[in-house]
Amino acid sequence: MTNEAILKALSNVEEPDLGKDLVTLNMVQNVVIDGNNVSFTVVLTTPACPMKDHIQNACINAVKILVNKEANVTVNFTSNTTSNRTDAKTLLSGVKNIIAVVSGKGGVGKSTVSANLALALAADGAKVGLMDADIYGPSQHIMFGVRGERPMMKDNGDGKGLIVPMERFGIKVMSIGLLIDEKQAVVWRGPMVSSAIRQFVSDVDWGELDYLIIDMPPGTGDIHLTIVQTVPVTGVIVVTTPQLVALADAKKGIAMFSQAQLKVPVIGLVENMSYFTPAELPDNKYYLFGKDGGKHLAEEFDIPFLGQIPIVQSIREGGDIGVPIMVSDDVITKKAFENFGHNTVRGIAMRNANLPATEIQEILE
Amino acid sequence: MTNEAILKALSNVEEPDLGKDLVTLNMVQNVVIDGNNVSFTVVLTTPACPMKDHIQNACINAVKILVNKEANVTVNFTSNTTSNRTDAKTLLSGVKNIIAVVSGKGGVGKSTVSANLALALAADGAKVGLMDADIYGPSQHIMFGVRGERPMMKDNGDGKGLIVPMERFGIKVMSIGLLIDEKQAVVWRGPMVSSAIRQFVSDVDWGELDYLIIDMPPGTGDIHLTIVQTVPVTGVIVVTTPQLVALADAKKGIAMFSQAQLKVPVIGLVENMSYFTPAELPDNKYYLFGKDGGKHLAEEFDIPFLGQIPIVQSIREGGDIGVPIMVSDDVITKKAFENFGHNTVRGIAMRNANLPATEIQEILE
Repeated sequence: MTNEAILKALSNVEEPDLGKDLVTLNMVQNVVIDGNNVSFTVVLTTPACPMKDHIQNACINAVKILVNKEANVTVNFTSNTTSNRTDAKTLLSGVKNIIAVVSGKGGVGKSTVSANLALALAADGAKVGLMDADIYGPSQHIMFGVRGERPMMKDNGDGKGLIVPMERFGIKVMSIGLLIDEKQAVVWRGPMVSSAIRQFVSDVDWGELDYLIIDMPPGTGDIHLTIVQTVPVTGVIVVTTPQLVALADAKKGIAMFSQAQLKVPVIGLVENMSYFTPAELPDNKYYLFGKDGGKHLAEEFDIPFLGQIPIVQSIREGGDIGVPIMVSDDVITKKAFENFGHNTVRGIAMRNANLPATEIQEILE
Repeated sequence: MTNEAILKALSNVEEPDLGKDLVTLNMVQNVVIDGNNVSFTVVLTTPACPMKDHIQNACINAVKILVNKEANVTVNFTSNTTSNRTDAKTLLSGVKNIIAVVSGKGGVGKSTVSANLALALAADGAKVGLMDADIYGPSQHIMFGVRGERPMMKDNGDGKGLIVPMERFGIKVMSIGLLIDEKQAVVWRGPMVSSAIRQFVSDVDWGELDYLIIDMPPGTGDIHLTIVQTVPVTGVIVVTTPQLVALADAKKGIAMFSQAQLKVPVIGLVENMSYFTPAELPDNKYYLFGKDGGKHLAEEFDIPFLGQIPIVQSIREGGDIGVPIMVSDDVITKKAFENFGHNTVRGIAMRNANLPATEIQEILE
């Protein structure tokens, strides 16, 4: 066994999403050979990569079949989250990917989806931040149980203070709701919103992050344009429910972000409240608001479909309890969010590798 | 037994909602005495009066106890729906009560509630019309299965044609969706909307109606002001779901119609999607969007609470089927709509008798 033979074997292992082999993609490092033992490290495009097991098996098989069937192969994993930021990085310089979660209308669960996406990615080992930019109704400080707390300030050496985000469940969280009185929020207007968002981006110590998730205000208005012009957004995720009225508004959202002058790609669409399942009857799916409305919308607009999130409730619960699903014991919804999270990071990694949207859409199907 | 003795006895029978006796309210007619047989007619304030049985028993008891315990008492019922219209009746002259169904936001089921309220009142024998004024997304022509049909015209003698509303399930239905191309609807703007609504009111042959229900556009905007200034609306019914975001928008709706210059009373609030019940497990209630949010809102604003409408679905159904609940076999939701309909007509009758809102609220509790 030689270093070259191992690399040659691994050049037959394809990264399933990116469609190229691990060696070409420069994903293999630290090949160490000791007798029949060989170990190497695969550098994934994201710590949340759901393809780990698949890649591990393919690597072991390639070495055994092509080099030495007696080999003991150890595949280590590390990750270097990809980024395609092309801005000057004067803002959020340590953040690799900035994901704006939008919805055409309120009430579709945008904030719940943002919070649980952040938690799903963090559970896979990614460094995640969550910025609650919903000035009309900030809720992440409530969801993450830091309501009423005030963030600390930190001196960054040049006399200018930085706001230290709150940390809960491994996520760095900042919410408009932490900085201002809740009743004050609704009366904010254009210029104030713009400066608040700028402050969130420039005066908060986000540090190194694989993903910063922005919980955007609902709707499609000037505020959204302001935010995507202020923040170097990687792409947006559109949240909808299968209701006709929600789908109509989701279309407006897709149309707005698809405007040529904005150049904000749509990473994909996620369908929330897809069906209801009683916790006690996990096989029963009740399509309360129609079936697959979001899925069909994604197909119609040629954007990747990232998943369906059900409503699961036990007969014992009264709703609105305020525990994020990812840290609750609701395994069905947790599984749905994990799947959505995986599709999201895969979609972003493929985008960062410049795959066209239609191809990403097909691969994620 | 004499006419006077019977009337004296019946002056002890109270109309439970209006708090006055039947004789004072001029509700007793055609007393006929023949030996031990006595019959009379009670003129109800609405054909949909849910108090019939109660009033019948009270009348029989009053005659037997106070006049003649051997009497055979026959109580006939008729109705003369009350009205408190104070306008010149140049428009909709045959319509006694005009109910505008509004919602602060879309997607709360305003159109479903309007359709099934109309059906519930008609099932009780009231003459009901349904005007779909939701110019953004007319749906009643779809719900009532008359999509694609065109209403007939009728000559009213003076050379001016009148539009004949469609009739389905005993309801006179007119929808913006019957007159214009569906794709055209969304681009309508202020003045056009205003003239379309005026046409709906002046050029449609609504005839004699106890209740005309108007399915309003969602939201709180100029269009709503235009409609209530064009049409002599008796009062509005606010539809909300228990979701926080829907409640916040419902508040805006209540605030708008409560403006002094509008003088449009809020008949009450109805909570839609209150809980989910699988058709196969009618005792299981899942409070998907929180419990009693609409009820608490009604209490907060001192407006009558008219009912809770559940979501009921069979595991076999896919949603969005388009059969109005009142003509389906969903007995649970049908019962909820009947109850809502009864509270609505009681609330209107009490308003027409000038009872204060807080008293109506207490009586309907």
